[in-house]
Amino acid sequence: MRYSDLGNQLKDSGLGELLALAGKPEMYNFSSGFPAEELFPLKELEEVNRAILQQEGKQAVQYGSSAGYLPLREQITARMKQVFHAPCTAEQIFITSGSQQGLSLLGQLFLNKDDVVLVESPTYLGAINAFQLCGPRFVEVPTDEQGIIPEALEEILRTTERVKMMYVIPEFQNPTGVTWTMERRRAVMEIVNRYDFPVLEDNPYGELRYDGETMPALKSMDTKGNVIFLGSFSKILMPGLRVGWIVAEPEILEKLNLLKQNVDLQCSSYAQRQVSYFMKMFDLDAHVATLKELYRKRRTLLYNSIQKYFPAGVTATYPEGGLFLWVTLPEGMDAKALAPKATERKVAYVPGTPFYPNGGHGNHLRLNFSTMQEDRIVEGIRILGQLLRDEIGA
Amino acid sequence: MRYSDLGNQLKDSGLGELLALAGKPEMYNFSSGFPAEELFPLKELEEVNRAILQQEGKQAVQYGSSAGYLPLREQITARMKQVFHAPCTAEQIFITSGSQQGLSLLGQLFLNKDDVVLVESPTYLGAINAFQLCGPRFVEVPTDEQGIIPEALEEILRTTERVKMMYVIPEFQNPTGVTWTMERRRAVMEIVNRYDFPVLEDNPYGELRYDGETMPALKSMDTKGNVIFLGSFSKILMPGLRVGWIVAEPEILEKLNLLKQNVDLQCSSYAQRQVSYFMKMFDLDAHVATLKELYRKRRTLLYNSIQKYFPAGVTATYPEGGLFLWVTLPEGMDAKALAPKATERKVAYVPGTPFYPNGGHGNHLRLNFSTMQEDRIVEGIRILGQLLRDEIGA
Repeated sequence: MRYSDLGNQLKDSGLGELLALAGKPEMYNFSSGFPAEELFPLKELEEVNRAILQQEGKQAVQYGSSAGYLPLREQITARMKQVFHAPCTAEQIFITSGSQQGLSLLGQLFLNKDDVVLVESPTYLGAINAFQLCGPRFVEVPTDEQGIIPEALEEILRTTERVKMMYVIPEFQNPTGVTWTMERRRAVMEIVNRYDFPVLEDNPYGELRYDGETMPALKSMDTKGNVIFLGSFSKILMPGLRVGWIVAEPEILEKLNLLKQNVDLQCSSYAQRQVSYFMKMFDLDAHVATLKELYRKRRTLLYNSIQKYFPAGVTATYPEGGLFLWVTLPEGMDAKALAPKATERKVAYVPGTPFYPNGGHGNHLRLNFSTMQEDRIVEGIRILGQLLRDEIGA
Repeated sequence: MRYSDLGNQLKDSGLGELLALAGKPEMYNFSSGFPAEELFPLKELEEVNRAILQQEGKQAVQYGSSAGYLPLREQITARMKQVFHAPCTAEQIFITSGSQQGLSLLGQLFLNKDDVVLVESPTYLGAINAFQLCGPRFVEVPTDEQGIIPEALEEILRTTERVKMMYVIPEFQNPTGVTWTMERRRAVMEIVNRYDFPVLEDNPYGELRYDGETMPALKSMDTKGNVIFLGSFSKILMPGLRVGWIVAEPEILEKLNLLKQNVDLQCSSYAQRQVSYFMKMFDLDAHVATLKELYRKRRTLLYNSIQKYFPAGVTATYPEGGLFLWVTLPEGMDAKALAPKATERKVAYVPGTPFYPNGGHGNHLRLNFSTMQEDRIVEGIRILGQLLRDEIGA
């Protein structure tokens, strides 16, 4: 077959294979990004399903609007205000098939081939892959444990041509677990407003904070309509429904609307109502509180187990929320080369290099703490710690 | 905002506005492509929902596979064999968010800017829009009431550079309602196999045949893996679930799998199970038979009303299935210019020009017969007929 350039460029990263292996029940699986399935509100979903069919059966399975189910968009405005301190109207909300679709649509809307997209270094793999379809150049902005470094960002903007947009995850970043400080948020927004370019603020984990104080979203400091916020119900409710949202200026939403009509018409009318009715009939905040309780315990246990079992010279971030922490091995070690040995011992993680769009940084790995039972977290980290000791010769 | 070329090119066709008007309850709406909502199997869906939560609750709302829910893919293989005479394996089936997503994914996979895509003249508006995102040139292949004209196709292939793929709807075409004859299918496939290029066979209406004999899909005559078949549950079950499928060679599906991971990860785990459980627990064939009975009646009524009320010089196709028929006004008349006058009299249709990717052909319009009650079909056509008489001066 003669594919397009895009078609020819699609290559298996090998990650799919790794994740397939990792999914086997005997594995100590730290490679996932799944929410804990034992907390899915299935009893509530049963009532939700009944209510949908009683109240809106026909509309729930008929074609609907490309922008999304209006009552859901209205419910999201309330949440944007209450949780993210970023008030908006329903006309600024657009429903997507999970945040992943938001990323690919916005990439298409802004990026020509060879345009520059700025990203944190490292950044979310799925975003790299979504933008990659447009053939941009990725410029990695140096980050530390407080977020993007404003001076580095400004230097890049001053010296780089064709910067079209920036993509960031200020809350419990994937993969590092880092949260931007208030000071950094202010400094970055000041620069963004001065240089005037769109910033995609990806916030799938923002509600999952286990300690420390809630931070206002970049969107809440946006005075010029530059910030495009991406939210998702995948991590706070159920990912299999595929419901996420974008908050942006109406001008951008008009474009998204036309684009979405062409790529898949609309999100599932039924799934959108499942989310909307759940929020109407039950207390999503209470549900999120239950999630946080479990994830907090697992986060702490993972972090403490690392302190106990990993050898000196190996460090880990302490995430105040989200689903991941980031491990740094001694310089020169290669987490990807180590992965098959870990798999042999039934431990799976994601090696760090794919999170750097321009490669390198082989001595990192990402660990997830949302899906495994507590005893398995401890045991898995004990085994991985032993492997690291064996390798380092400690 | 500085958009990409694609972003800048997204323009409202004005069709959205027309369709919004058309959706008002007082309108005689022939512009829709919706299935009849009074036949949605909502009682059955209630049982389906209960069974999903009992048998697979957690998996139904968790992340799933990009290629789709395996039991559904297996069920579709049976349907491909039984209904379309095109046996295949589950490894050749890929689930999409409706056929619209199939079209946009396949466009991305095959079309570079300025590549040529061949289409029937006229062809489905949604396909034009999906492919348009890749910036191809559209070459329209002349068609008549038997389908694509093979000699014209061969002439185009002989004289046109950069032909990358062809897109066709051999069954009850949208917008014309035309079905390709057996002879045409054979002749076209002979040419396709000789020139060796991918053919997208879009078949959303194939099961909705009201008279005449079932025809084998092009896919069933495909000996070289050139035909990519697109199917959908939108018209035979419920469009709001957004479940369609692609049948293609495993090599193409690997590419689709990588692409889908990047554009939206996967289709709704839950919606896929709604379709799958429906097929397992109920008789989809019996449901389709009920649809056919209603649509046959409405098709015949629409056609007969046209014969009765439209003036001489106006002709209509007689579709053996599907949802649409195609009206040709006298040369020189402009269906688009006429639309506002029709709207004033509370009649809505879709003007023909948008179905020609290179424009022109203003004297056509598309009429749908699936959504309106019988008395409203007759009355709407009487009114439209009177308008046409007034315009023609007949």
